[in-house]
Amino acid sequence: MPTWKATACSCSNIAFIKYWGNIDERLRLPANGSISMNLDGLGTETTVEFRDDLECDVATVDGQEMTGAALDRISRHLDHVRAMAGQSLRAAVTSRNNFPAGAGIASSASAFAALSVAATVALNVVLSERQLSCLARLGSGSAARSIPGGFVEWHAAATHEESFAESFAPADHWLLTDLVAIVSRAHKSTGSTEGHALAATSIFQETRVKDAPRRLALCKQAVLACDFDQLAEIVELDSNMMHAVMMTSQPPLFYWSPTTLALMRSIRQWRASGIGVCYTIDAGANVHCLCAPGDEQVVSDRLSSYEGVLEVRRAGPGGPARVVTG
Amino acid sequence: MPTWKATACSCSNIAFIKYWGNIDERLRLPANGSISMNLDGLGTETTVEFRDDLECDVATVDGQEMTGAALDRISRHLDHVRAMAGQSLRAAVTSRNNFPAGAGIASSASAFAALSVAATVALNVVLSERQLSCLARLGSGSAARSIPGGFVEWHAAATHEESFAESFAPADHWLLTDLVAIVSRAHKSTGSTEGHALAATSIFQETRVKDAPRRLALCKQAVLACDFDQLAEIVELDSNMMHAVMMTSQPPLFYWSPTTLALMRSIRQWRASGIGVCYTIDAGANVHCLCAPGDEQVVSDRLSSYEGVLEVRRAGPGGPARVVTG
Repeated sequence: MPTWKATACSCSNIAFIKYWGNIDERLRLPANGSISMNLDGLGTETTVEFRDDLECDVATVDGQEMTGAALDRISRHLDHVRAMAGQSLRAAVTSRNNFPAGAGIASSASAFAALSVAATVALNVVLSERQLSCLARLGSGSAARSIPGGFVEWHAAATHEESFAESFAPADHWLLTDLVAIVSRAHKSTGSTEGHALAATSIFQETRVKDAPRRLALCKQAVLACDFDQLAEIVELDSNMMHAVMMTSQPPLFYWSPTTLALMRSIRQWRASGIGVCYTIDAGANVHCLCAPGDEQVVSDRLSSYEGVLEVRRAGPGGPARVVTG
Repeated sequence: MPTWKATACSCSNIAFIKYWGNIDERLRLPANGSISMNLDGLGTETTVEFRDDLECDVATVDGQEMTGAALDRISRHLDHVRAMAGQSLRAAVTSRNNFPAGAGIASSASAFAALSVAATVALNVVLSERQLSCLARLGSGSAARSIPGGFVEWHAAATHEESFAESFAPADHWLLTDLVAIVSRAHKSTGSTEGHALAATSIFQETRVKDAPRRLALCKQAVLACDFDQLAEIVELDSNMMHAVMMTSQPPLFYWSPTTLALMRSIRQWRASGIGVCYTIDAGANVHCLCAPGDEQVVSDRLSSYEGVLEVRRAGPGGPARVVTG
């Protein structure tokens, strides 16, 4: 029995300037550009094995058999790769995350980045990093950013081929630490895909999108200059802006838990007292605490004893998605 | 010793469509119109006695002697009345609130409404309700809305004489109940006057202001039709929009406490389960729970046992500011 098999791994990423809302839902063309840092050690490893004895795609994620919409989403992603390869083989996908899914760490980002790399390598489809980023984007918007390494910008554009992410500084450029304060392990009540579709119902989304080039420029400048204070201000503002859009969409989306809000307040106080730390929050309740080099231990100590914080995950800047075996 | 003395009382009010930001800070001309309901039983009683044996104004609020900026604000308000009366007499002001000051119940609204009525009556300055509303506005913007009774609209306008509040439905039009869940008795860290000055630093304020006529029309329609569901949607959206502006101003303002956020979530769930209740939150952490007629008891019961709720104040629709003795 001939098999076409490869394994790839990819980091999750944390957005400094957020992606929220699409101009094309099907192609996941984002309303605004975004900037992120890959997260070393928070990621997904995925094996894709195309086999001629399978009648349909099968997939397990963290040991759990996927069915329904979740399997369908994976299958449709594999269809893109099969089309490029001129193949119709079905595949067995085995994927493992090293963090809880659906809780504000972008599990779909690393999942679809790893899936894109593994599936193309398995079928001998040779893509550039840019093409891989576009492909990953079709599965999950933020997965586009998990293809390149280090500090990454994902471009907003009107066509599939132009909306890709690229690195603008390598992982070792600036040793920031992301301490992820896990305050909830629950699956979010509104998934990101549904949430993106609601973005345009907020009266503030248009303003947020129009201002994005300014925020992107400030953020990139802060990263390139390793200016933590500037980074902190723009990152928190951008996070607040996205959540302002979420909570004014119709229906409104509230992703923060009481502990999220308490932490936001504390982190601002800690920074005012001289500690290099700022917060950013995705579509979930967990709080990403970005720490300046040297300040991660004091922040980690405080988070560990913080009421309502279940666990703290630590990640530095991560590299690009890569093939493990294939 | 001749004296010119009067006592007046005024209700606080809760805004259904919020006031946030001025086009003229000195005259407190609001960036957008607002709608509120006076709160029966949550108010201020104020006695003003102009005396020829006083060298300067003196004031006590809730038994506490006012000094510095607080006294100055009262004194400047009395100056307007003295100017109208052609008098220069100094006054002794005694004021009493029946709720904690500075905690998200608009104590300055009822305070400056009562002060305006008492001071003008004491000096025999005869003003129309509209003129009294403009005068009260100079002391505290939302005080303009505590002069007329019942359900009130305060008009945004370019001049002092045109920016006044008027009743569009009497107090007995609709027996809504405001259950104020007190979650904090602390003075707010950023007062409303400072907060208003920051409104324009949020990228979202312009959009919020431009959309205000639409929200005002929807809210007024809901009140006139006694349509609780429509009221609930527009009131919560408007509250969320104001807080979205606050948390994206520079520096950002976060008035919510963890309990505030938890209550917002619960109240939406209670409404989804069929209870006529919605939330609205001013520049503070306390949660105003507006209840449809007949639903106040079940909400009150739930609030009383809610973790983090210190106390629940109950108020129905209130009448206009009025003279007690004078």
